[in-house]
Amino acid sequence: MVPENSQLERENHVGIILVTHADYGSALLRAAELIVGPISDCVSIHVDATLEVNDTVSRLNEAAELLNSGYGVLVLTDMFGGTPTNLSLALLRNNKKLDVITGVNLPMLLRVLSKRTVPLAELSELALKAGHEGIIAAGGVLKNKIDEK
Amino acid sequence: MVPENSQLERENHVGIILVTHADYGSALLRAAELIVGPISDCVSIHVDATLEVNDTVSRLNEAAELLNSGYGVLVLTDMFGGTPTNLSLALLRNNKKLDVITGVNLPMLLRVLSKRTVPLAELSELALKAGHEGIIAAGGVLKNKIDEK
Repeated sequence: MVPENSQLERENHVGIILVTHADYGSALLRAAELIVGPISDCVSIHVDATLEVNDTVSRLNEAAELLNSGYGVLVLTDMFGGTPTNLSLALLRNNKKLDVITGVNLPMLLRVLSKRTVPLAELSELALKAGHEGIIAAGGVLKNKIDEK
Repeated sequence: MVPENSQLERENHVGIILVTHADYGSALLRAAELIVGPISDCVSIHVDATLEVNDTVSRLNEAAELLNSGYGVLVLTDMFGGTPTNLSLALLRNNKKLDVITGVNLPMLLRVLSKRTVPLAELSELALKAGHEGIIAAGGVLKNKIDEK
């Protein structure tokens, strides 16, 4: 299915924006690039408390517009209730094809990057699932406790 | 309860080590510091593929020893199956009071930092819970879909 406003010269995939405190988003992106190689149509925006809120919202809106090739944009933020998430939610006013998911971690980002040609709602579900499934007691006291149950 | 090997001049809390690809761990720590202020007894170690595995394991072991004031150490890694996690699991051989949890995100780290005087097993459970609870469809297509259900 090709969306009505698809621009055929662009990639047929969902745009990704990481919105975080400090440079957490760009470092996460670098970690992902170490694993999967160069990543396109994915930007990281850090919310700088010294900038005016309107300036940040403008940057976010510009990024959302730039990255939406008709397939929508998925915004991954660091934590619910934080300024990066709150400002990202402001994007929903102008962008119907946009999702915001909080609590980004590396498994979530990697899944999103590997599946971004699926429709936005489906991609968001995959993101949630991968984020949750990636949180594991991998060893030690807690794992032994769980294994004993 | 004071552990047998407690060093009274040190903090009575669990040590935290972030082990990740690239500088993701240190950026996550900086994001947390922006929110909660300076953080003690918490280090970030990035796993550099150009270093010998043994060198990295030595660095991890030294950090675990340094940060364990008798209350144990919680290792938060980026993803299950990745080299940072695999090398962290090697620490379990020498450290009985050590937990490894994968898929670290900001809500998990913040919860751990705010609760690190509880026993290690309990802290690990809190970490898992906070990591999961922090992953939320905050707005957009998916949230509307969930709200409709």
